[in-house]
Amino acid sequence: MTSLVLHPMKEVRVIIPGEEQSFVIQILDTLKISGYTIIKNLSGKGRHGFHVSHPMFDETESLLMIMTVVPEEKVPPILSGLAPILDRDMGVMFVSDVAVSRLEHFSEPQGDG
Amino acid sequence: MTSLVLHPMKEVRVIIPGEEQSFVIQILDTLKISGYTIIKNLSGKGRHGFHVSHPMFDETESLLMIMTVVPEEKVPPILSGLAPILDRDMGVMFVSDVAVSRLEHFSEPQGDG
Amino acid sequence: MTSLVLHPMKEVRVIIPGEEQSFVIQILDTLKISGYTIIKNLSGKGRHGFHVSHPMFDETESLLMIMTVVPEEKVPPILSGLAPILDRDMGVMFVSDVAVSRLEHFSEPQGDG
Repeated sequence: MTSLVLHPMKEVRVIIPGEEQSFVIQILDTLKISGYTIIKNLSGKGRHGFHVSHPMFDETESLLMIMTVVPEEKVPPILSGLAPILDRDMGVMFVSDVAVSRLEHFSEPQGDG
Repeated sequence: MTSLVLHPMKEVRVIIPGEEQSFVIQILDTLKISGYTIIKNLSGKGRHGFHVSHPMFDETESLLMIMTVVPEEKVPPILSGLAPILDRDMGVMFVSDVAVSRLEHFSEPQGDG
Repeated sequence: MTSLVLHPMKEVRVIIPGEEQSFVIQILDTLKISGYTIIKNLSGKGRHGFHVSHPMFDETESLLMIMTVVPEEKVPPILSGLAPILDRDMGVMFVSDVAVSRLEHFSEPQGDG
């Protein structure tokens, strides 16, 4: 019944063009971040103009949000890993506080396994 | 003009497979949580592998997020109500701080009505 | 390499019927909020009953969420600007704390430019 406990963590969300999805997931995989959720077909307006989304379009043309939940110490390496995207203005990263029901969904154990 | 005041509340989000939607909504209904928003067709990777979402698929095969905003005292009963899903690793629950423009959208009055 | 710094900001999300999108965006434009993201095809239940969303429907019939990130001082003018919608129960506004990787994505410089 560990589910009745909430654990304070950091929620990280990244909004990127669809074609950057594999780059971001590769960073998460490298950091042993084993769980994430993707919201596709976002529209948005940023510095480079309005992005229009439509379910019939090639999904790489639209924006998507990748969200994950991690221990606080994983935030700096994610930010470093995503720097190539963030520095080229191809995405934005958001960090916020969140409490989650199950730690093991989001991150590999920190142990020696 | 009550809309110019922001009220501190708790945002609760649950990410679940589509087939668990009615279970979660039944819990919210039982707790008199009268407002919620659903984001469908999520993709994700969790402990059980990558879930792929496509608008043409049966929506029960994909993930969805149910979000609601509640007074803090409703968080423990939601967590208890969702324990059957959370304990089977079928979903994850997130809780975070939020301020909202209109209290009455999210929860029944606490009075004796 | 400014991307390695996270800046504390306010995340503002508005959930509205599709037909209110242009009103909300006009408010954001007036306030020089130059970046936002839209999640379309939401379902939800509120005070006026359940809204069903389907990708094939006219998008103005469904709910959408507009999210943006702003400096704290922009929250009251957004709330004031959206009052006509919020007061008619046509939408809800959420405010939460967030840290972001790039300030310039979200708001015009405060300078005299």
